[in-house]
Amino acid sequence: MAGDLRGKRVAILAADGVERVELELPRGALYGAGATCDLLAPHSGEIQARQFDLVSAGTLAVDREITYASVSDYHALLLPGGTVNPDTLRINPDAVEFVKACVAAHLPIAAICHGPWTLLEANAVTDRRMTSWPSLRTDLRCAGANWVDEEVVIDGELTTSRSPADLPAFCAAIVEQFAKTGQRAAS
Amino acid sequence: MAGDLRGKRVAILAADGVERVELELPRGALYGAGATCDLLAPHSGEIQARQFDLVSAGTLAVDREITYASVSDYHALLLPGGTVNPDTLRINPDAVEFVKACVAAHLPIAAICHGPWTLLEANAVTDRRMTSWPSLRTDLRCAGANWVDEEVVIDGELTTSRSPADLPAFCAAIVEQFAKTGQRAAS
Repeated sequence: MAGDLRGKRVAILAADGVERVELELPRGALYGAGATCDLLAPHSGEIQARQFDLVSAGTLAVDREITYASVSDYHALLLPGGTVNPDTLRINPDAVEFVKACVAAHLPIAAICHGPWTLLEANAVTDRRMTSWPSLRTDLRCAGANWVDEEVVIDGELTTSRSPADLPAFCAAIVEQFAKTGQRAAS
Repeated sequence: MAGDLRGKRVAILAADGVERVELELPRGALYGAGATCDLLAPHSGEIQARQFDLVSAGTLAVDREITYASVSDYHALLLPGGTVNPDTLRINPDAVEFVKACVAAHLPIAAICHGPWTLLEANAVTDRRMTSWPSLRTDLRCAGANWVDEEVVIDGELTTSRSPADLPAFCAAIVEQFAKTGQRAAS
C-alpha cells in the first residue's frame, strides 16, 4: 500500500552539483503522495544541477537558505546525490547541524548515491545498515556503517539507495517510509 | 635548492572532472625541473577538466590508459584533485592497484585537494600525517590518518596540500621531494 503524505512537509537538502534526476524523481514521488517539499540550499536563488556529474542540467529554485530553516517545520529529510553536492554540504556547518537535528528528532531520512556523505559528517552512519554509490563504501565502513550492495536498504528511520538506476524502488520506498512519521510521533 | 628531475618520469593519474589548475601547474613545475610526465587515465583520448568543479575547463590529452601502465616505468606519482576525478579513480580497480604498487615501490607520491581519496582507497593513509580539501578530513581521519590543516605536509614519501591556493608551495615541494627518488633507490 502506497503511503499517504498529505499534510507532511519534506526538507530536500542540496547544493550546486546536485544530480538532477535524484532530486526531481523523489520530489515527484513526494508530490504524488500529497507532500509539500522545500529545497534547502547553502545560498538563495538557484542551484546548478548536473547529469552524471559532468553534464550541465539546468538550475533548481531554492525555497529557503539552510541557515534560516528549522527542523521543527519538517516531517522528513531527503538527501539527493551528485558528487559535488554533498562534498559541499558536508563542510557547511548549517547543513551538518540541520542533518544532526533531523537525526536527533528521529525524522525519516532518505539518501541516495553520494548523499550519505552528509550523514557521515553528521555522525549518523555508525552501526547503520545502508548503501550508497560504491565510491563511498570505504568511507562509510571506516565510519562504522554496515555497507551493503542492495537497491534499497531500510534501517529504522534511514532509507538508502545506490544510484539513479535504483530510483523506481527508492521513490516507492520513501513514500512508504516518510508516511510513518505520524505513526512514530504517535507511538 | 630546487630539485633536478632530469631523467625522471612522473605518472599523473587523473579522470574526467580533474581540477585543471591542479594538474597543469604541478606538471609545469615538473617540466621546469626537467622531468617527463605521462597523464594516465581510465580511458584513452581526452579527459574533461574543470575549474572549481562546476565550470568546464576544456580537455587534457591522455598519454596512456592506466590498465596499460607499469609502475616500473615511473619515478614518482602525482594525484591532482577535482571532486569527480578521484571519486571515479577510487572505484577503478586499475587505478587503485596502480597506486598500491607505487606505495609498495616507495615512490614519492604527491596529492592535492580531493586527490587523497584515491590514496585512502589504496590503504595508504593510515598513520600518515597529511592534509587535503576539508571535505575529506573526516574520511581520512576515520581511515587512520593524522589530518592537519597546513599548506604543505610532507611525511616520508607522501606530500599533500589542501587546495589550488596552496599550489605555489605544492609545486616547490614536489620538485624537491620527487628529486629524492634517486637518493632513495641508492640507499
